[in-house]
Amino acid sequence: IADLLPAKNGEEPTMQFLLEVVEILTNYVKKTFDRSTKVLDFHHPHQLLEGMEGFNLELSEQPESLEQILVDCRDTLKYGVRTGHPRFFNQLSTGLDIVGLAGEWLTSTANTNMFTYEIAPVFVLMEQLTLKKMREIVGWPDGEGDGIFSPGGAISNMYSVMIARYKFFPEVKTKGMTAAPRLILFTSEHSHYSIKKASAALGLGTENLILLKTDERGRVIPADLEAKVIEAKQKGSVPLFVNATAGTTVYGAFDPINEIADICEKYNIWLHVDGAWGGGLLMSRKHRHKLSGVERANSVTWNPHKMMGVPLQCSAILVRERVSGLLQGCNSMCAGYLFQPDKQYDVTYDTGDKAIQCGRHVDIFKFWLMWKAKGTVGFEQHIDKCLDLSAYLYNKIKNREGYEMVFDGELCTNTTAPSCFCTVHSIPKVAPKIKAMMMESGTTMVGYQPQGEKVNFFRMVISNPAATMSDIDFLIEEIERLGQDL
Amino acid sequence: IADLLPAKNGEEPTMQFLLEVVEILTNYVKKTFDRSTKVLDFHHPHQLLEGMEGFNLELSEQPESLEQILVDCRDTLKYGVRTGHPRFFNQLSTGLDIVGLAGEWLTSTANTNMFTYEIAPVFVLMEQLTLKKMREIVGWPDGEGDGIFSPGGAISNMYSVMIARYKFFPEVKTKGMTAAPRLILFTSEHSHYSIKKASAALGLGTENLILLKTDERGRVIPADLEAKVIEAKQKGSVPLFVNATAGTTVYGAFDPINEIADICEKYNIWLHVDGAWGGGLLMSRKHRHKLSGVERANSVTWNPHKMMGVPLQCSAILVRERVSGLLQGCNSMCAGYLFQPDKQYDVTYDTGDKAIQCGRHVDIFKFWLMWKAKGTVGFEQHIDKCLDLSAYLYNKIKNREGYEMVFDGELCTNTTAPSCFCTVHSIPKVAPKIKAMMMESGTTMVGYQPQGEKVNFFRMVISNPAATMSDIDFLIEEIERLGQDL
Repeated sequence: IADLLPAKNGEEPTMQFLLEVVEILTNYVKKTFDRSTKVLDFHHPHQLLEGMEGFNLELSEQPESLEQILVDCRDTLKYGVRTGHPRFFNQLSTGLDIVGLAGEWLTSTANTNMFTYEIAPVFVLMEQLTLKKMREIVGWPDGEGDGIFSPGGAISNMYSVMIARYKFFPEVKTKGMTAAPRLILFTSEHSHYSIKKASAALGLGTENLILLKTDERGRVIPADLEAKVIEAKQKGSVPLFVNATAGTTVYGAFDPINEIADICEKYNIWLHVDGAWGGGLLMSRKHRHKLSGVERANSVTWNPHKMMGVPLQCSAILVRERVSGLLQGCNSMCAGYLFQPDKQYDVTYDTGDKAIQCGRHVDIFKFWLMWKAKGTVGFEQHIDKCLDLSAYLYNKIKNREGYEMVFDGELCTNTTAPSCFCTVHSIPKVAPKIKAMMMESGTTMVGYQPQGEKVNFFRMVISNPAATMSDIDFLIEEIERLGQDL
Repeated sequence: IADLLPAKNGEEPTMQFLLEVVEILTNYVKKTFDRSTKVLDFHHPHQLLEGMEGFNLELSEQPESLEQILVDCRDTLKYGVRTGHPRFFNQLSTGLDIVGLAGEWLTSTANTNMFTYEIAPVFVLMEQLTLKKMREIVGWPDGEGDGIFSPGGAISNMYSVMIARYKFFPEVKTKGMTAAPRLILFTSEHSHYSIKKASAALGLGTENLILLKTDERGRVIPADLEAKVIEAKQKGSVPLFVNATAGTTVYGAFDPINEIADICEKYNIWLHVDGAWGGGLLMSRKHRHKLSGVERANSVTWNPHKMMGVPLQCSAILVRERVSGLLQGCNSMCAGYLFQPDKQYDVTYDTGDKAIQCGRHVDIFKFWLMWKAKGTVGFEQHIDKCLDLSAYLYNKIKNREGYEMVFDGELCTNTTAPSCFCTVHSIPKVAPKIKAMMMESGTTMVGYQPQGEKVNFFRMVISNPAATMSDIDFLIEEIERLGQDL
C-alpha cells in the first residue's frame, strides 16, 4: 500500500485499486438481486476463526499486499449475509437501495463530521431541511420543532427520555436524579427493549418503567395506562413519560395514540411515539391513519433505515417544542474548541451541542439523496407495496393447513408489515430447527422468537423493495420443505 | 430511478449509474490530494439555502432524474470541506486513507448490523479479534477483557461511567440513582466535555463532576485529585470514577496515569483513561511511554478514527475486567426477538446485548482492513511521522517573531500532535479574523479557541498522513499573509 496516495505518483495505483474494489462490490450487488444466489453461506464461528482457504481474520505485524487486500474484501462478502437479497426477511432493515448505496459511498469519501457547519456545511443544511420535512409529515404546523439524527432507534428513544426529564426537571442535569422525585415511565409490554435500556442508563431504574397490558393484537390498553398512572401518583411518584409504539418490533402493532395522548394531556405527561419501525407509514396517505394522533406527541422516533429502505444507520428523533430549545438545553456543554461564538458565519447552524455525542457520523446524505431520487411519492409507493405484500402473506397463511396466525386475523388491518405465524407443529423447538436448516441451506432467512406465553413463532418482515409475491411463496414452500423431515 | 435494480433488466442501468458515481468520487479523491485544489469553497448558510446554480437542497414530491442525482452528488462534494486535503488541520480526524475508504464502501454495500452473529458473522469476529489485539496493546495479559465499538468517543466515555456505576452499585440498573449514595466523578479541567455530558445524561449531575487542576502544560495534578477525593469522602459522598486523559483535546496533554492509578487503587475508585485522541500512540514503541500506566486502568477509550487515520466513525471502549461480564450485565435486556438462546451456533458471539444501542453500524471492517494493509508497523510509522511533524512545527514557531507558544516549551516532549500557539497580536479577535479569511480563501484550515484565561489561540492538529513539512510551512506563511492587513 506504499504506492497508494498520498505517495508520490500514487494516483495511478490508487485509481486502479479503487476500481478493482468497485468491481468486487458491483459484482456483489448484481448477485444480491439474483434469486439463484444464496442469501448466505453459513459457517460456525470456530470455522471462520480457524481460517477458510486463505481467509485469515488474524491481524499481523507486517503489511499484506494489495492483492491480498482484494481477496480479503471478496472473502468478507462471501462469508457474510446478503441483507439486500429479495428473500432476506430476517430483520426490520432489509434491502439494498442503489441510490442510498451511492449516497453512502459519497458519505465515506467526504469523511466528515456533523458537529459544525464549518466542516459539514452541506450535510448540516440537508439535515435541517430533512428534519423539517419529517416534522411537517408528522403534522406539526410549518414543520416547527427540533430534532437530530442519531446512531439508531435505541439512542433516539434515549433522547426522548432525556428531553422529557429535562423539560420537567431541568435541575437533574446539574444535580443528578436526587434532585427529582421518583419518576415513572410507561411503555407497552410489547415495546422495544431500548426504553428499558434507557431507563437503566439514565439512572431512572428499570423498576420505574411500568409495562402496560396489551390487547390480543399487542396494542396498549389505554385504561390500563390510566389506572397505572393513578396508582403511581397515589404512591407519591411522578409519571413522567409514556412511550406509545407505532409498529411494535414483533407484532407490528400500533398503540392507540389519540387515546394515550388524552391521558398524557390530562396528567401532564410527556408523550413519546416510538415509530422506529412504523414511522415510515406516515409517507403513505393510505396507511398513515394507523399513527393517527402522532401530531400530539411531544417527541417521535422515526428510523428511515427500517421500513423506508435507507441504508444503515439512519434514525431521527423529532421534538415538537422548539422555542425553549429543549434538545440544546438538555445536552449543551458549550465546548470552546468547537462552538466558538465569534465565527464569521451564523453559528446557530453548529448543531453539535444538541447531541449526546461529540463527533457524529453523516447519516443524512444517503436519505436526502434517496428522497431526491424517489420523491415523496416514491417512498409512498414503496410503503404501500410492503403493506400489500404483508396482506398477501396474511391471506396465504390464514387458511393454509399446517399454520396458524399468532394473533387474531380480524385485527390484521391494524398491523404493518411484520406478520407473525407459526406452523401447527408449534412446539417450541420447531421454529429454531427450521431456522437452523434454512441458514445451512442459505436459501432464505426469516426470524423467530417467543413472545409472552406464545411459543417460538416466525416473524416475517417485509421492508425489502426487491421482495415480490413469488418470494413470499418461496419462503412458505421452503418452510414446508425443511419442516417435512421433522 | 425506476430503471435501477431491483427493476427488471435493471442490471445494466445500475452498473452504469454506480460507475458514474464512482467516477465522481475518484475524481474527488484525486483532487483532494492535489495541493492546488482548495480545501473548501466557503459559502454562508443562507447562500446554500437559496440554491447555488442548479443545486437545490429542498426535497420534493416528485422524483429527480438520475442525471440530476449525479449533479447533486457533484455539488454536494463541491460545496463541502476536503477533510483529507494535506492542508486540513482543523479537527482531530483528518486524512483520507484509501484502504479505509475502500473498507467503508464495502461496509455500505454489505449494509448489515452488528447485533448478532446471525447477520454479521464475519464482522462480529473481526470486531472480537481487533478488540483483543487492542487490549493486548494496552497491556492487559493475553488481551483478556471486554469491549465494544461505539458511535464515537463521547459514547465510549459514557459507557465507562455506566460500567463503573454498575460495578459498584449494580442495583442502580433496576432501582435508579436513588439506590446509590451521592456519586462523584473526577476529571481534568482540560478534559473532553463528553465526561460532563455523560454525568448529565446518566443522572449523576454535572455538579457531581469535580474538575481537577492542571499544571501549566494541561496535565492533572495528582495531589489535587487526592485532596478532592478526601474532601468528597468527608462530605459523605462516594468517589466513583476518575477520568485520566491521554491526549487532551486542546493541549494534547497526557495526564500522569501511574500517579492517578495509585490514588484510585488507594481509594478503590474506577480509573478510566480517555485515549480517544492519544490512544493511537500505543502503536508506537517510541511514544507509548506517554501513556505509561494505562494497563492499570479499568477502562480505556481509544478512537482509531482520530490519530490512526481510520475513516469516521471508529471508536472503541475497552474494559479490563471480563469474568464478571460487566458490559453485558450493565446493558443486557435479553430481547427475545434477537438473542434467542436456542440458535444452532454458539450464541456468545451475539454481542448486541452489551450495547446501549440495538442496531449498531459496522465500524470495524475499515479498521480491520487498514490493519491488514498496513500491519501494526504501518500504524507505528504513521504515528511517529505525526509526532515528528509536530516537533517540526514546534521548533519552527518557538523562536519565530510574531508568535508565542501557549504553554511552556520545555514540557513539549510530553505532548502529542496538537500544537497550540498564538500570534503576538494575541488579542482575542485576531485568531477568529484570520480563520475567517482562511475559510474565505479556502487554502488551509486550522482551529482556534480560548482555554481558561488564555485568549483565542490556534490549535494545530497533525493526524493527516498526507501532511508534510511543506504543508506546515504553508500554514505558517498563510497565517502571516492573512494577518498582514489586520
